[in-house]
Amino acid sequence: MTKSSNEIEEGLAFLPKFDADGLITAVATDAKSGDVLMVAHMNADALRNTIRTGEAWYYSRSRKRLWKKGESSGHIQRVVELRVDCDQDALWLKVEQEGPGACHTGRRSCFYRAVPLGQSGPVTLEFRNADKTFDPHAIYAAPANKPRR
Amino acid sequence: MTKSSNEIEEGLAFLPKFDADGLITAVATDAKSGDVLMVAHMNADALRNTIRTGEAWYYSRSRKRLWKKGESSGHIQRVVELRVDCDQDALWLKVEQEGPGACHTGRRSCFYRAVPLGQSGPVTLEFRNADKTFDPHAIYAAPANKPRR
Repeated sequence: MTKSSNEIEEGLAFLPKFDADGLITAVATDAKSGDVLMVAHMNADALRNTIRTGEAWYYSRSRKRLWKKGESSGHIQRVVELRVDCDQDALWLKVEQEGPGACHTGRRSCFYRAVPLGQSGPVTLEFRNADKTFDPHAIYAAPANKPRR
Repeated sequence: MTKSSNEIEEGLAFLPKFDADGLITAVATDAKSGDVLMVAHMNADALRNTIRTGEAWYYSRSRKRLWKKGESSGHIQRVVELRVDCDQDALWLKVEQEGPGACHTGRRSCFYRAVPLGQSGPVTLEFRNADKTFDPHAIYAAPANKPRR
């Protein structure tokens, strides 16, 4: 193990590793249930804003801009704890999700379909907790507001 | 919304979206505690093997090869549930982690450091659940066995 990888993995210096596009993967889980709400990305500004404000900011790859979660919908995420992984190329946000959901499709979590296990060949997904908890068309009035990544 | 994005987001066809490197992000959480254990990547073979066997396979970006979690350490992950997100570019594995930990540094989770919130400027991390639960040097005898991503 090089000194550098030892510093990254065992040290207390925060050395977030952004990818070639300047982004780092961020996983938001519900602080109460532990469910994964969403997987998104942050650039340096989004990370800085998240640390400073304690609310989740991301970078939208589709809209190519900084994005405060909930800026359109009001469904902000209060960050209870922010953690970084061993090689500092992924972030975990434990959040209190404000409002009925985190997903732009109108659901609490983006992960509302399961992949059945124990089989080969083509896969048919199965819905899980897939009932819509809000109407995304009512929340996101203009397409520009759609919180796509 | 185009028909295609509607199919991806609302349909039951499994259409995993691999990135330019042929990889998809996979988040493994502890099925009991809800803690995020690791963030890794799968290629098509890793995903196929995971679905078929019900045990987690990944693709190691550093070693550039398919990797069954636990193949060196015995610390396999039994997948309790596999889910895909709205735009099908991220996977969530709820797993039963065999053995003392998932992280190659010798800890249960890769996320053993917190980023303090509410501040600007340089950040000093804080250890969280950072006690080593196994000796990685004893488990991974040869450097080639080191389960880096």
